[in-house]
Amino acid sequence: MDDLSLRHGGSVFAGLVGASQVLGLVSVVLTGVWMGHYRGGFAWDGSAHEFNLHPLCMVLGLIFLHGDAILVYRVFCNEAKKHVKLLHGIIHLLALIISIIGVVAVFDFHRAAKIPDMYSLHSWCGVATLIFFCLQWVLGLLFFLFPVASSWLRATYLPIHVFCGLTLLVMAIGTSLLGITEKLLFSITDTYSLFAPEGVLANMLGILLLFYGVLLVYLITREEYRRPPNPEEESLSVHFKNLTEGGVPTTP
Amino acid sequence: MDDLSLRHGGSVFAGLVGASQVLGLVSVVLTGVWMGHYRGGFAWDGSAHEFNLHPLCMVLGLIFLHGDAILVYRVFCNEAKKHVKLLHGIIHLLALIISIIGVVAVFDFHRAAKIPDMYSLHSWCGVATLIFFCLQWVLGLLFFLFPVASSWLRATYLPIHVFCGLTLLVMAIGTSLLGITEKLLFSITDTYSLFAPEGVLANMLGILLLFYGVLLVYLITREEYRRPPNPEEESLSVHFKNLTEGGVPTTP
Repeated sequence: MDDLSLRHGGSVFAGLVGASQVLGLVSVVLTGVWMGHYRGGFAWDGSAHEFNLHPLCMVLGLIFLHGDAILVYRVFCNEAKKHVKLLHGIIHLLALIISIIGVVAVFDFHRAAKIPDMYSLHSWCGVATLIFFCLQWVLGLLFFLFPVASSWLRATYLPIHVFCGLTLLVMAIGTSLLGITEKLLFSITDTYSLFAPEGVLANMLGILLLFYGVLLVYLITREEYRRPPNPEEESLSVHFKNLTEGGVPTTP
Repeated sequence: MDDLSLRHGGSVFAGLVGASQVLGLVSVVLTGVWMGHYRGGFAWDGSAHEFNLHPLCMVLGLIFLHGDAILVYRVFCNEAKKHVKLLHGIIHLLALIISIIGVVAVFDFHRAAKIPDMYSLHSWCGVATLIFFCLQWVLGLLFFLFPVASSWLRATYLPIHVFCGLTLLVMAIGTSLLGITEKLLFSITDTYSLFAPEGVLANMLGILLLFYGVLLVYLITREEYRRPPNPEEESLSVHFKNLTEGGVPTTP
């Protein structure tokens, strides 16, 4: 058994990560099936088909990719930290771009259909999540990828960055559940309470997203799954300022 | 500055706890105002007025009291642990009783109004939360208040108990946001998108609950706010089996 297996509780860790990926992927596929099969498919023409891109993009970007971007620190704990950090930032950037496309799609649809924006709790939570997600990405870039902050500032900001990242993932999942509820009550008003297949499928999607979130937060917060600190790597490679300031390295 | 102030970061901790109490109380009051003023008040007669007890009981029991039951470990960190543990269990029991009343109210209303049960994502999440909440309470009682489990088993279960407690609090808040969305789309279908005062008030309630949850999870997960271990107290008072097994005490 190698070091990785020992630190990660071996097969339990691998099993949980595998389960999270299955849950995330099935959630994305179910969203695609819901919007593709039950809601008529996708387009970029201001119609309801453009709206259909909204749930797909948000589940793919702000939930699945967001979660996986966080998870890379636990999965690739034997890789050079600067590579993992880059991967973390790149997946987050991809998540951000896809999420913005998803938000543009719904605003476009609202404008074409003359539906007011920003009146629902779903929209309030969603826009707040996206704004803080952008802010979190920019701050993460400045603090951890570019040598802007001092070592002390980085070490102070790190637990806040981790807490905010997980909070934003949970907020994204909560917001998507609100969106599922809204969409079902708008689209199948009369048959939702009769257990229409579309309603059951969308409810199951909500439950899968919930499981994905719980599993992700569990994997990230369990002490034994944390990336072990590597002072030598820290001082030599990524934290440029360490060389001049002799600051204490930080380990997400 | 006394020991408590030092460990808790002094006024910051006190300020955050105070803010959480204000958020929780204002949420309960806003729910009462929403149901009392906009939805016609409360009764126990199978009517919509009985339904109105549901949101009030759930916000009071499964969110505010649930959160405060968790928080006692951080607030009363200088009190004897057995007292804090008892308080934790008693507030949770109160939360459980109030939540069950709230759930009975909505099932009663559904039966009288011939509305199907358990079809919505809100109901799926809500019932799952309540079942796991009961299970968590019973397991907590067996593991930590009665000398059923060994010291090793208690120490192993403790982080799971803490993780599940916080997860259930977040699930309760997410479920309440789903309930708010459902209620608004059923009750003010045509005026919600026109920013009707009832809709804005209920959205604000959702945001306050969200803030309450974020603050609670922050206070519980910050390392410096944890109750410091006290081996002497552990071995002398609460964990009866320690005396015979010499197990390592556990500290939530």
